[in-house]
Amino acid sequence: MLFEQITIIGVGLIGGSIGLAAKARGIAGRVVGFGRTTKTLERATELGCLTSFSTTLADAVRTANLVVVCTPVDKIAATILDAAPHCRPGTLFTDGGSTKGNILAELGSKLPEHVAFVPAHPLAGSEKNGAEHARADLFENRLTILTPTSKTDLEAVARVEQFWRALGCRIVSMTPDNHDRVLAITSHLPHAVAAGAAGVTPTELLPLTAGGFRDTTRIAGGDPALWAAIFLANRDAVLSSVENFTARMAEFHTLLKAGDGAGLVRWLAEGKQVRDALGS
Amino acid sequence: MLFEQITIIGVGLIGGSIGLAAKARGIAGRVVGFGRTTKTLERATELGCLTSFSTTLADAVRTANLVVVCTPVDKIAATILDAAPHCRPGTLFTDGGSTKGNILAELGSKLPEHVAFVPAHPLAGSEKNGAEHARADLFENRLTILTPTSKTDLEAVARVEQFWRALGCRIVSMTPDNHDRVLAITSHLPHAVAAGAAGVTPTELLPLTAGGFRDTTRIAGGDPALWAAIFLANRDAVLSSVENFTARMAEFHTLLKAGDGAGLVRWLAEGKQVRDALGS
Repeated sequence: MLFEQITIIGVGLIGGSIGLAAKARGIAGRVVGFGRTTKTLERATELGCLTSFSTTLADAVRTANLVVVCTPVDKIAATILDAAPHCRPGTLFTDGGSTKGNILAELGSKLPEHVAFVPAHPLAGSEKNGAEHARADLFENRLTILTPTSKTDLEAVARVEQFWRALGCRIVSMTPDNHDRVLAITSHLPHAVAAGAAGVTPTELLPLTAGGFRDTTRIAGGDPALWAAIFLANRDAVLSSVENFTARMAEFHTLLKAGDGAGLVRWLAEGKQVRDALGS
Repeated sequence: MLFEQITIIGVGLIGGSIGLAAKARGIAGRVVGFGRTTKTLERATELGCLTSFSTTLADAVRTANLVVVCTPVDKIAATILDAAPHCRPGTLFTDGGSTKGNILAELGSKLPEHVAFVPAHPLAGSEKNGAEHARADLFENRLTILTPTSKTDLEAVARVEQFWRALGCRIVSMTPDNHDRVLAITSHLPHAVAAGAAGVTPTELLPLTAGGFRDTTRIAGGDPALWAAIFLANRDAVLSSVENFTARMAEFHTLLKAGDGAGLVRWLAEGKQVRDALGS
């Protein structure tokens, strides 16, 4: 057992899966939930994600050793600042947010000194939302990116890293800025592209789609509010990745318009080379 | 048994799967293959896709009742015209091409009167190529689009429809032009978009991708030459779908640049609505 009590704030797909995994793997003595709606917390408890829950933030975190904040990215910093005054000295915070720079910027120097926050991003999302889709194995062999700053307590980093590893994750560390620039390309752009491709498809043509459309647009099913918050939180990097992508599509358009078969083959082969390097 | 002999020209994923399915379902007395390379035909025979093969086109089609042309789309019309003079009266032709207008335009009025061609497009592709990936169940419950013209013999249409149904397909019919306009949106655009998203991703960032990138870019692994031929064969419709998509991405860029959260949520919700209508 790593922690006597873990408190999860925001018990959706990620928060619920953390609860399931923490219980299944004996990581915590108890897993306490906090969220906006009692019904969601009751359901998450039924599903086995939580030992118990509280509808009062102070009660939920008072005896926590680790608080995992799994709210939308635009709520994470405020949630930490709300919760911290109610925590015992030495309480650790981590999160599951898809952006990191905005959270650290919002926290600034406001985090009370008796707690420590180690930002984390488990690359384990899905187009599905809610504790209903939570899985104890969601993190197995997935990557979690930690973005501690030079001010983050090293012992806190080690403990939080141990937590994510215990859930089954592999770990890499990078700066928050680097995280946000990279994820704008590897995650935020694909989401925008999938949503864009879905958005230009008349629903009456859906019966005439096949596996390619299905795969390419799958993540367009993600929650619009969650994703709008992610895009806004990482605005400059996402704008830049979209511009880069749009320029690439313009190349395609130019080659096709010119009937340049060799150019199209080369353009397609460049994409294939990247995709093949990933494997199926 | 629908046909004593089916001949498959081009024994890759689609052609090989037709062979497997035709044998497994007792559709043909024998399945004969023809292709460019003996090694591929030998391998396809080993894999059970073919009863036998010939490396001479005339021999391969001489006693065929149905010839299924599964070459790249830019070779289909020429292949039919090469094969037809060697066929017996009443021989049927169909194909598996992803575009239809170009094939009919290339055929013009050149098709000999003793044979009939019923254009078909089974929506059953994959990013995988070759008979190695052929599956007897590839067509089960998949849609095949038939694009007969007003000149196509109705009995030939009925027989070819029966063939594709016997492979497990559902059938719809539409005009070649309509097919090409629809597929530019539902299939060709997603391919270009997936290849574009893969193409702007530095390979060193691949370890920092997750399921979203994996799904969105999956079909970028498709064969560049096959797809360049498809894009060129359906140039105007694909250009138009790319322009439409690029305009949609420009809306996203404008909303994000303006920090318009409500607008982004709406933009994302429009894509989600389409994708949700498809189901997982």
